[in-house]
Amino acid sequence: MVSFLSEFKRSHFCGDLRAEHIGQEVILFGWVASSRDHGGVIFIDMRDKEGLVQVRFESDTEESYELANQLRSEWCIGIVGQVVSRGSNINDRLPTGEVEVIGKRLEVFSKSKTPPFQIRENTDANEMLRLEYRYLDLRREPLQRALRLRSKVNQATRTYLTQNLFEELETPYLTKSTPEGARDYLVPSRVNPGRFYALPQSPQIFKQLLMVSGFDRYFQIVRCFRDEDLRADRQPEFTQIDMEMSFVTTEDVMRICEGLMKSIFTCAGFEINPPFERISYDEAMRRFGVDAPDLRFGLELVDVTEIAGQSGFQVFEQTVSEGGIVRGIRIPGGSETFSRKMIDELEPFVGIYGAKGLAWAKVNSDGWSGGVSKFFDDEVRTKFETAFEAEPGDLLVMVAAKESVTCAALGNLRKKLGGDLGLIDKEAFRFCWVTDFPMFEYDEAEGRYYAMHHPFTSPRPDQVELLDTNPKEVKAQAYDLVLNGSEIGGGSIRIHQETVQNRVFELLGLSKEEARQKFGFLLDALTYGTPPHGGIAFGMDRLIMLLSRAESIRDVIAFPKTQRAADAMSDAPNLVDPAQLEELHIKVVGVFEEE
Amino acid sequence: MVSFLSEFKRSHFCGDLRAEHIGQEVILFGWVASSRDHGGVIFIDMRDKEGLVQVRFESDTEESYELANQLRSEWCIGIVGQVVSRGSNINDRLPTGEVEVIGKRLEVFSKSKTPPFQIRENTDANEMLRLEYRYLDLRREPLQRALRLRSKVNQATRTYLTQNLFEELETPYLTKSTPEGARDYLVPSRVNPGRFYALPQSPQIFKQLLMVSGFDRYFQIVRCFRDEDLRADRQPEFTQIDMEMSFVTTEDVMRICEGLMKSIFTCAGFEINPPFERISYDEAMRRFGVDAPDLRFGLELVDVTEIAGQSGFQVFEQTVSEGGIVRGIRIPGGSETFSRKMIDELEPFVGIYGAKGLAWAKVNSDGWSGGVSKFFDDEVRTKFETAFEAEPGDLLVMVAAKESVTCAALGNLRKKLGGDLGLIDKEAFRFCWVTDFPMFEYDEAEGRYYAMHHPFTSPRPDQVELLDTNPKEVKAQAYDLVLNGSEIGGGSIRIHQETVQNRVFELLGLSKEEARQKFGFLLDALTYGTPPHGGIAFGMDRLIMLLSRAESIRDVIAFPKTQRAADAMSDAPNLVDPAQLEELHIKVVGVFEEE
Repeated sequence: MVSFLSEFKRSHFCGDLRAEHIGQEVILFGWVASSRDHGGVIFIDMRDKEGLVQVRFESDTEESYELANQLRSEWCIGIVGQVVSRGSNINDRLPTGEVEVIGKRLEVFSKSKTPPFQIRENTDANEMLRLEYRYLDLRREPLQRALRLRSKVNQATRTYLTQNLFEELETPYLTKSTPEGARDYLVPSRVNPGRFYALPQSPQIFKQLLMVSGFDRYFQIVRCFRDEDLRADRQPEFTQIDMEMSFVTTEDVMRICEGLMKSIFTCAGFEINPPFERISYDEAMRRFGVDAPDLRFGLELVDVTEIAGQSGFQVFEQTVSEGGIVRGIRIPGGSETFSRKMIDELEPFVGIYGAKGLAWAKVNSDGWSGGVSKFFDDEVRTKFETAFEAEPGDLLVMVAAKESVTCAALGNLRKKLGGDLGLIDKEAFRFCWVTDFPMFEYDEAEGRYYAMHHPFTSPRPDQVELLDTNPKEVKAQAYDLVLNGSEIGGGSIRIHQETVQNRVFELLGLSKEEARQKFGFLLDALTYGTPPHGGIAFGMDRLIMLLSRAESIRDVIAFPKTQRAADAMSDAPNLVDPAQLEELHIKVVGVFEEE
Repeated sequence: MVSFLSEFKRSHFCGDLRAEHIGQEVILFGWVASSRDHGGVIFIDMRDKEGLVQVRFESDTEESYELANQLRSEWCIGIVGQVVSRGSNINDRLPTGEVEVIGKRLEVFSKSKTPPFQIRENTDANEMLRLEYRYLDLRREPLQRALRLRSKVNQATRTYLTQNLFEELETPYLTKSTPEGARDYLVPSRVNPGRFYALPQSPQIFKQLLMVSGFDRYFQIVRCFRDEDLRADRQPEFTQIDMEMSFVTTEDVMRICEGLMKSIFTCAGFEINPPFERISYDEAMRRFGVDAPDLRFGLELVDVTEIAGQSGFQVFEQTVSEGGIVRGIRIPGGSETFSRKMIDELEPFVGIYGAKGLAWAKVNSDGWSGGVSKFFDDEVRTKFETAFEAEPGDLLVMVAAKESVTCAALGNLRKKLGGDLGLIDKEAFRFCWVTDFPMFEYDEAEGRYYAMHHPFTSPRPDQVELLDTNPKEVKAQAYDLVLNGSEIGGGSIRIHQETVQNRVFELLGLSKEEARQKFGFLLDALTYGTPPHGGIAFGMDRLIMLLSRAESIRDVIAFPKTQRAADAMSDAPNLVDPAQLEELHIKVVGVFEEE
């Protein structure tokens, strides 16, 4: 075999052969996708990363025929052969379908057992089985495609950013634990007994320090870690396009990011047209009920609080008098398309988000019917119709609750309806920037503020004084990039003044001592001539998922973890030798495992 | 300030201004490197990542003069000004020295305390202080240069490899602990109590599995982790250029790597000329005493075992009769340049490597003198002279010991002499491939074999049978790339047959059960049509160190760890909240820390 590889170098990829190659001798390496004996002629579908081609061994081809006769699926082989025309026998389903290769020489590099599932475009194999045999699942075309796209996106990202004078700088993975928000993954230190490193949730502080150092523009495609309770689309380790720039405004960062997105989408074969629409957080919540609006369809929320407050309907009036709001969605033509049963099913859906009920009414040419119709007189109905711009045949749905519940209920109902009603153009890519987020969220239960973005986010410069008088009202210089209703990136202009940073830490409930203990080095850095700076991070996994139209984030990661944060193939995490733990000065406690 | 950044965008970098810009209005952002008041004129040396330029504020320049008068070192500023000629007042030491900028408008973004050390090309500040204020140390030109070179090398690497059809694929950081050689860093799992992830020492198995998956060519610039006792040039986390290719021979891998090195060195401004010299491990040990020979100078080792064995000198004869060897180095002209004292100092040096003594003699035109001269008659002396190709004026030094000691002693003595005698061309880059390493090292004390490269390295195909009969003699298909006496990369053709892999595990003392428990998924993968494959990994940190002629590996890493594996700036690793440990089901034991 070594002699075969020394003598013969690949001339083409299987999937690249076309009519223009007819007559050429070719050398191919790859796998047997399928084989069949057809009256003394062996036909092989041979596969490599570029695709399939048919190879034929005839009984008069010296010793190769005998060997070819033994070939089974997934054997790894090399062949020397000649490209010939398939004449009128064209296979339309294959890009190589006009040609086939007559095998002259065959080398078997290795045999294969029968795989636990078939290697083909679509599989109905159980996902756990696929993850256990990940190296076989990765032979499937959709995963090959997604990961190769990912490789291309990486290069497009780096090319664009280096052209725009960004330096690629590496930040550490063994860092300090300063838990804010998500849990850290910890790494016990052997050399420093009793102490722990943390794997970074993001390189946030390091990239800010690189700006303090004068690197001017930084980027990195970098792994980040969060020990969160796992959801379907979460992974304990994930990849970010991480960026930071000095001497910039929000507009400067957006312009660079729009160019980056254009480069990435172009390399994936899609045309997009920045600049993207900009929507303030307040407007997004008002019109869409969520801070990551999907602009591919309408069904915008309409505020009818004022009308509802004087509508005569007791439920509405009470909610409004208690400071709640009433908003609704007009579903064009819904009067006919929605059965009573379908409408009834929407109520438990909004219940998930805390809404106590869903008020609805059908607007007919001869008046309203059903639902809450009976509570309103004609005058009130007309006011509603005007507010909703309703037409006969429409279905109106409304939620009355405190603002956060109304927004969440209707925002999610809108997304559901957009999908259910087929209003979403699956081919479209609709971007928007969401801006002017509040600096803080107030947690009523805990009686304290949390940073909406992170504690290093700068307030709007004209609102710095409000930090002392009315923190709730302060808007941040923060921005999210939203694509098709998913947040794909988020960032901010950072605080570059020590006094402001100290004030924000204080509002977040950190004592001076805690602030110094956790972030003293950052506070110090801010006293040595820190440039104004800002940046952003994009979630690479989700971006590739949207670009490749994959259904699961696990389909765009070479070796993903299961929802139990485990590697089903290698069986990580695993039990380790007690001697290893002893060296690390730690002991497992409270675990009883029967192994 | 925001309004300043909104209104004014950087027009040039400070360090880029030249005579051609005279007359232009420019907008600069950067730091005050120094300032001085010179009779009503304020002179500022303003610095950004591209260099320095002089800025002048005159007392008649509106309000800017007053503000400029307050400027101190390391304040972060923006200016609008006009480029003018410095006339005959050229500053030869600055690339911008023909011009200066008359400041029209000045914005102070932030002030700076007096830095703990001066920000300049060379500093005598203590390294611990520099590491504590890393964000300031990184403002120094040598570190800026090294890290920007590193960014360029990254791009050159990726461009070359993607042009050669490599896919950039990401492998996990939370992996399985299978300690072989170095210690793993462990990460306790919260979701899987009592179990641990390991941070990868290299993505070795994952990249092999990607070949099993048919990705054909893989690369990644990837962080790796080893919990080793630290030496001056080691870091707990380090970066590799990691590569793997299917359907290749050793020659194919070398050819690709030579092209990669050419791309990298070209981007750094150096011309190199592959192909590189190839030296077998045996030849390297024989001629240079080490497996990473420095080819920038001579002083090759000469084997004189045969002569020494019948020389009449009892020490030599006994060593040879016991199976030892005698080798030596001819130091041209050393007879005169080496005093008795200098020669005496070499003896303890070779003692470090286990040599019991250093035999020496001066070759004069009228015979030998000093050292061991008196033990040899003329006939033997002539034989030695012939073997060494000695000439009058030379100094001969010899070590007699078992092979490994003789090689280590003379190999390291050769390096020392090369440096001490000024034989090394500091500008030269001399590469060589070292090939045909033994598969195994036999540890006499433990009575077992260790893998010289790693357990996945393929034996030479013509020697597979020797695994059963004489494992010590089996050569591996392994290769190191050596530059100026440092190993900068190492790799191998891998085992792609399950039977061979099992046999190697067995020779390494792994029982069938242990092999399955640790590497079962790899053994399984080898049964599903694995292509022949091989690869290599280059140490990025050391490569950048050689390219940038830095003296410490810490000078080419943005945020390095100290020799205590700590981050002196952020104080990682740190003590963590006991609640964090409780969630992870672990407890610190045997540590008493007074904090």
